Amino acid sequence: MNLLKEKQEVRDIVTQARARGRSVGLVPTMGYLHEGHLSLVRQARAENDLVVVSIYVNPTQFGPTEDLGRYPRDLERDLSLCREVGVDIVWNPLEMYDSGHRTWVVVEELTERLCGISRPSHFRGVTTVVAKLFGVVRPDRAYFGQKDAQQAFVIRRMTQDLDMGVDIVVCPTIREADGLAMSSRNVYLTPEQRTQAPLLRRALMAAEEMVATGERRVATIRARVEEVLAAATLGRIDYVEIVNTQTLQGVEEIGSESLLALAVFFGKTRLIDNTILRIS
Amino acid sequence: MNLLKEKQEVRDIVTQARARGRSVGLVPTMGYLHEGHLSLVRQARAENDLVVVSIYVNPTQFGPTEDLGRYPRDLERDLSLCREVGVDIVWNPLEMYDSGHRTWVVVEELTERLCGISRPSHFRGVTTVVAKLFGVVRPDRAYFGQKDAQQAFVIRRMTQDLDMGVDIVVCPTIREADGLAMSSRNVYLTPEQRTQAPLLRRALMAAEEMVATGERRVATIRARVEEVLAAATLGRIDYVEIVNTQTLQGVEEIGSESLLALAVFFGKTRLIDNTILRIS
Repeated sequence: MNLLKEKQEVRDIVTQARARGRSVGLVPTMGYLHEGHLSLVRQARAENDLVVVSIYVNPTQFGPTEDLGRYPRDLERDLSLCREVGVDIVWNPLEMYDSGHRTWVVVEELTERLCGISRPSHFRGVTTVVAKLFGVVRPDRAYFGQKDAQQAFVIRRMTQDLDMGVDIVVCPTIREADGLAMSSRNVYLTPEQRTQAPLLRRALMAAEEMVATGERRVATIRARVEEVLAAATLGRIDYVEIVNTQTLQGVEEIGSESLLALAVFFGKTRLIDNTILRIS
Repeated sequence: MNLLKEKQEVRDIVTQARARGRSVGLVPTMGYLHEGHLSLVRQARAENDLVVVSIYVNPTQFGPTEDLGRYPRDLERDLSLCREVGVDIVWNPLEMYDSGHRTWVVVEELTERLCGISRPSHFRGVTTVVAKLFGVVRPDRAYFGQKDAQQAFVIRRMTQDLDMGVDIVVCPTIREADGLAMSSRNVYLTPEQRTQAPLLRRALMAAEEMVATGERRVATIRARVEEVLAAATLGRIDYVEIVNTQTLQGVEEIGSESLLALAVFFGKTRLIDNTILRIS
């Protein structure tokens, strides 16, 4: 496994690989890897000749009052995990933006809903850094988790709109035994908050069950989700939304495929989770 | 020469060429080609194995009151000119944007000055379509004219900021015998406007002469430029600016290299020209 810091080194190695006809898969991460990330890497390993994992805590996707400074980091551990799952290149850039940086990739509308309301500049930072990562690596495929559903939708939209020619692969959410979606931010939770956090998944399951037994009214389903979440006495709901999976606009009735997404604050820690509600 | 319409056809041919180690040069145009465009193509021909010319009147770079509908078009003539100068591929897309398009590439600050003031959404359209063209063609080099100086600066900034790995080559402005910078929009000029239009170049030359003989004060030089332009009785100055070539911010004194840029309306037709003022 190769640990690289410089864009040009990454570009050179990947260009050489591509010239030999090898396919390239990219897994963009902010490090502090967990099973969720590793499932993306395994999928990338299965589908590509060369697997690149980027580890970069991207400052432009954090709001001014968010957790950039204390975001958890453990490069040594990340590297040994990457080695175990057969990564070819770990790219850990020292710096991604030069001082003259003025360019932003903006996806309108999709980024103004759900998480975009409480994190207004977040997705602009995500799309811009992902465009930069794609610019350097030029992967055939890039891997993202369903846990960050809106991010995956936004990146897929960007990739298509800018003709980037990268296949966006979205992999299932990986969960702890008690149902909590894995996230690097789970380490922020106090023991008490941690015991209540699985209620997010339980709320999603309550909605799935209602849809399975015929309920179609969004208002009714949402009320039930909020009721389950109310048991999380240490939590504060940021949003519970049921939206069209193409536009991320709210719907009144469950369509053949709707996204139920939610965000809950435990203190300053914001957890998100989601499920696709399908009428089968 | 190959005339292609579909993105995927272009992508396939260019990918095959690159796999055989051939370099790719792209000349993005809106068609109605003149000597200015052809000089870019000749330079691309000299520096690349495969030369791609795109011909697409990009709607997103026109303002709501601008000349999208009447922008001059002559594909047959363009194709025969491209054949003469040895173009390999002409890409004439039928459609670049799908109905779900929501993504914009925005370069801040540089686009808010000079032409950006009277054309507030123009550069966003330019950078977005160029990002798309680069996404499909993935050229090694792309060619732009110095006549559109701000456009070249903005595109260079975007390319660097998004790590696109494309070398932006800027070629000198090509002029008519009387000094008027070549532009597809020159056909809009009435005969009377056409006789006055070379005053733009004469105003630039007056400034060059002042700098050559020691003048450094921007206010003095600008006053002289405006004096020369005043002889264009059918024209109306949009702006005359002398700016830093890195930031495009106004300067008070000529530095080692400053950009003098101007725009003049003749009726609804807006002409631009510029020169780099250098202290030798």
